[in-house]
Amino acid sequence: MRQTQLFTKTKKETPKDETAKSAKLLLRAGFVHKEMAGVYSFLPLGFRVLNRIVSIIREEMNTLGGIELSMSSLQDPNVWKATDRWNDASVDVWFKTKLKNDTEVGLAITHEDPLTRMMKSYVSSYRDLPVYLYQFQTKFRNELRAKSGLMRTREFLMKDLYSFTATAADLDTFYEKAAAAYNKIWKRIGIGDTTYRTFASGGAFSKFSDEFQTVCETGEDTIYLAKDKSIAVNNEVFTDVVLRDLGKKKDDFDEVRAIEVGNIFKLGTRFSEPLGLMYKDKAGKPHPVVMGSYGIGPGRVMATVVELFSDDKGMVWPKSIAPFDVHVVELNPKDNSIISSAARDLVEHLEKSGKEVLHDDRDLSAGEKFADSDLIGIPVRMVVSEKTVKVGKVEVKDRKSGEVTHGLDG
Amino acid sequence: MRQTQLFTKTKKETPKDETAKSAKLLLRAGFVHKEMAGVYSFLPLGFRVLNRIVSIIREEMNTLGGIELSMSSLQDPNVWKATDRWNDASVDVWFKTKLKNDTEVGLAITHEDPLTRMMKSYVSSYRDLPVYLYQFQTKFRNELRAKSGLMRTREFLMKDLYSFTATAADLDTFYEKAAAAYNKIWKRIGIGDTTYRTFASGGAFSKFSDEFQTVCETGEDTIYLAKDKSIAVNNEVFTDVVLRDLGKKKDDFDEVRAIEVGNIFKLGTRFSEPLGLMYKDKAGKPHPVVMGSYGIGPGRVMATVVELFSDDKGMVWPKSIAPFDVHVVELNPKDNSIISSAARDLVEHLEKSGKEVLHDDRDLSAGEKFADSDLIGIPVRMVVSEKTVKVGKVEVKDRKSGEVTHGLDG
Repeated sequence: MRQTQLFTKTKKETPKDETAKSAKLLLRAGFVHKEMAGVYSFLPLGFRVLNRIVSIIREEMNTLGGIELSMSSLQDPNVWKATDRWNDASVDVWFKTKLKNDTEVGLAITHEDPLTRMMKSYVSSYRDLPVYLYQFQTKFRNELRAKSGLMRTREFLMKDLYSFTATAADLDTFYEKAAAAYNKIWKRIGIGDTTYRTFASGGAFSKFSDEFQTVCETGEDTIYLAKDKSIAVNNEVFTDVVLRDLGKKKDDFDEVRAIEVGNIFKLGTRFSEPLGLMYKDKAGKPHPVVMGSYGIGPGRVMATVVELFSDDKGMVWPKSIAPFDVHVVELNPKDNSIISSAARDLVEHLEKSGKEVLHDDRDLSAGEKFADSDLIGIPVRMVVSEKTVKVGKVEVKDRKSGEVTHGLDG
Repeated sequence: MRQTQLFTKTKKETPKDETAKSAKLLLRAGFVHKEMAGVYSFLPLGFRVLNRIVSIIREEMNTLGGIELSMSSLQDPNVWKATDRWNDASVDVWFKTKLKNDTEVGLAITHEDPLTRMMKSYVSSYRDLPVYLYQFQTKFRNELRAKSGLMRTREFLMKDLYSFTATAADLDTFYEKAAAAYNKIWKRIGIGDTTYRTFASGGAFSKFSDEFQTVCETGEDTIYLAKDKSIAVNNEVFTDVVLRDLGKKKDDFDEVRAIEVGNIFKLGTRFSEPLGLMYKDKAGKPHPVVMGSYGIGPGRVMATVVELFSDDKGMVWPKSIAPFDVHVVELNPKDNSIISSAARDLVEHLEKSGKEVLHDDRDLSAGEKFADSDLIGIPVRMVVSEKTVKVGKVEVKDRKSGEVTHGLDG
């Protein structure tokens, strides 16, 4: 894509109420636009990163046996009343609205409840199980204070997978497979080394759950990471009782700040019982279906990567989720046709070899172009200029290491 | 995909309040699930069709020079107040909700207003124009009565493209290109022969606009189609004055029912003026940016295809948007391993050649499987049975023509 086609521009300033480094950089580089507190639109560069994260997650969910669907945002209160999640005492982040006839409806905070109700149409026998369903779908959560930029927003894309199994043992088996898939996702996205499966509270569903926490000094959460990195425990459950169960002592752990990039829950029969999602076993005896849920917020993952990998010049995207693979920067102040055709040839050559390329064809100074390129953070920068054309080479620079090489033919 | 993996099942019955043939068939075949009146979730088969429609539209939008982004659903009232679209007298389909601090927010009905405001950050000179932006994004419209199944829903995916140009002449040029891209889309989706660019009211924006109307006896709209098919006029603007302008007589037209599958509007400066989206020309003189908007609802397109092409046995998908390319139906009542391995080989062979295959490996009678296959409407059905394995062939049936051939080796 030519940069003159990309309508966004980098900015020097960010909204005063933004304090998170990731939000500041994403806003300055034109990856996102702030609509209001806690609500962001994804501009082309940000949308590309988001889609690459989504693609990685989708591949791993498919490998896990997940089937993709897409549920609605508007929610029928009746299903949430049946599970006692409609009233504000139990769920305090609802956005509620009304139909013209004054009937209240909700905006999806998550989908266990409507999905469980829907599955009553399709599950009746042990032969119908297991089923693993997932979606990438917009959630709405009425956070009291939206803070930390894209870390905690009022509207966000979520990958939510739900498992429906016959027994608790089947759930346990799948749960471990899902945890392994999550670890594979973090690795592919480039945060595998600093992301830990973390023992956490089960919230309303069960005694414990697992979070995936990426160690980061600007994180909202406090976790205790074992010095040998073998285990991590969320602050909420770092108690003497839990430590004893884990066979660990307080001194075995370091207190660190972290960002929760994913979580997995054993729901058991928390939703299938009140909503009546039952199956018959081989002997014809009815049982409630055993469920689990598995979430990742791709937007938060994107912001986490920015928190972790940016430097004083801007963002540094891992290759797997960068908005483009190569940033071709054309330095051509006199609009020399030899230089512009060398740049176009290079872009074509790269695109033919399967690379996605952003071509800076703008009429700006070298300094401005380099600053923008560093801010946007595409992994490889290639410069085409009078100098490089003269020697028949292009200058190649690695964004992460800063190393400059003269590589490809021009 | 194996059909035992696909958790949905076909149904004999549909909700009593559904009257549209398309909704009944899509619900019976498990393509969609009804959450409440006017709100549907997309199950795997329906989600696949929707995505194929989206892919076709995306390709044509990219060819048109469109750049993809994704705006938020939650909307800041201030921007809509500036264009006088916040109050219910001017827009009567708002869903409004409140933040915890009682601030009102809206759910996106469309995006002209917030996008125009956003573009103030990026457009200041004639050099920044033209820009064409599009998204596939969920719209919410609080319809008084949700009817006709997926034809008019309270929540739906919409492709909305917005053009930002310097002059009315630039808008006119792009508008015609967009109209041509729309016609290409209808053709690729299989409704090109019956879809007409239709002269329509401009609503709040301009005197006239263009709709794309697919002739269908169950359509909500009434249009007048020239007997020579050269022009179509929406009922709303079929007046003596308009007819005189078009140089036509009433008798030149037939009254037909139709479904609006897309629409395009010349917005002019309706939004750029109140919101102050200005650019400076070469002489430094400021002008409001000239805009257009271009919509398609992929879910309505999907329902339109069902209305048009279904028969008494079920749906008949065009090849370009079918949920799968081939339905391999394995008839294997005694669980004969030779038959199942022949079926698996066939599926593998087809998948290797790039086809997407649904493999009916369920333990059901031939009659039930054929009925389901006809209902789901995948373009090609291939049967693998004791009989076909014996002769080393598979039975191939075209869903549309019903023609049966013995084609491929088994």
